[in-house]
Amino acid sequence: MNPGDLKFRVGDKATLTKTFTEQDVVVFSQISGDRNPLHLDEEFAKRTRFGRRIAHGLLTAGLISAVLGTRLPGVGCIYVSQTLTFRAPVYIGDEITASAEVIAVSEDKTIVTLLTTCKNQAGRVVIEGEAVMLVPQQTT
Amino acid sequence: MNPGDLKFRVGDKATLTKTFTEQDVVVFSQISGDRNPLHLDEEFAKRTRFGRRIAHGLLTAGLISAVLGTRLPGVGCIYVSQTLTFRAPVYIGDEITASAEVIAVSEDKTIVTLLTTCKNQAGRVVIEGEAVMLVPQQTT
Repeated sequence: MNPGDLKFRVGDKATLTKTFTEQDVVVFSQISGDRNPLHLDEEFAKRTRFGRRIAHGLLTAGLISAVLGTRLPGVGCIYVSQTLTFRAPVYIGDEITASAEVIAVSEDKTIVTLLTTCKNQAGRVVIEGEAVMLVPQQTT
Repeated sequence: MNPGDLKFRVGDKATLTKTFTEQDVVVFSQISGDRNPLHLDEEFAKRTRFGRRIAHGLLTAGLISAVLGTRLPGVGCIYVSQTLTFRAPVYIGDEITASAEVIAVSEDKTIVTLLTTCKNQAGRVVIEGEAVMLVPQQTT
């Protein structure tokens, strides 16, 4: 298969939906080391602009990684870069849908740029940004 | 305290170090939904350019979140945006040091831009990018 045989086209899109639980937030605090009380301490969070605990931005962004790594462009592609703008908080219990849409494909078909967006159950954008993925050249 | 009292200065720097374990990668796969076999399946990973399993890029980036959220600029600041370029793979067992260095402070002291870098135990840059954090105005 040649790189030109890969079927990524501008406009291709995939999504994944997940509800972020308290357990997800606690576990992400442990594996990342980010024990900011905004995520873990309800009393602390009440005194912030958010009013209650929120999920870590990079935990939510993990759902983008899941779309890219398992759906589009999928297994075997290499993560080159990601930009993330955190537009709105994700609260514990929010159902987030991450989408990835191909917005550019390099002439040699090896670099795919995707618009990556996370929305909550109300349709509000919580994260937006762009990902660049490398599509390995296949020689067989 | 007024925003002007906050002590962020260009050149301020903080770091955090963590070894990413197999358990971290398995758990991140579960909470993110990113079950790409590159992270979970040793036999699959052997056949890729990496030769063995690697940690998710956004798992490693979580250590940046930890530095920003708990060290510099610290608790109470709001994550506005993050760029991430994945320069080199992080293998299971790698010891990663994330650093955040203030590279700009807005005139009103409410927006801090930081250079964010992750290096492995050999000193190789694995992730680099920039974070923008909002420093809430404090009125008391």
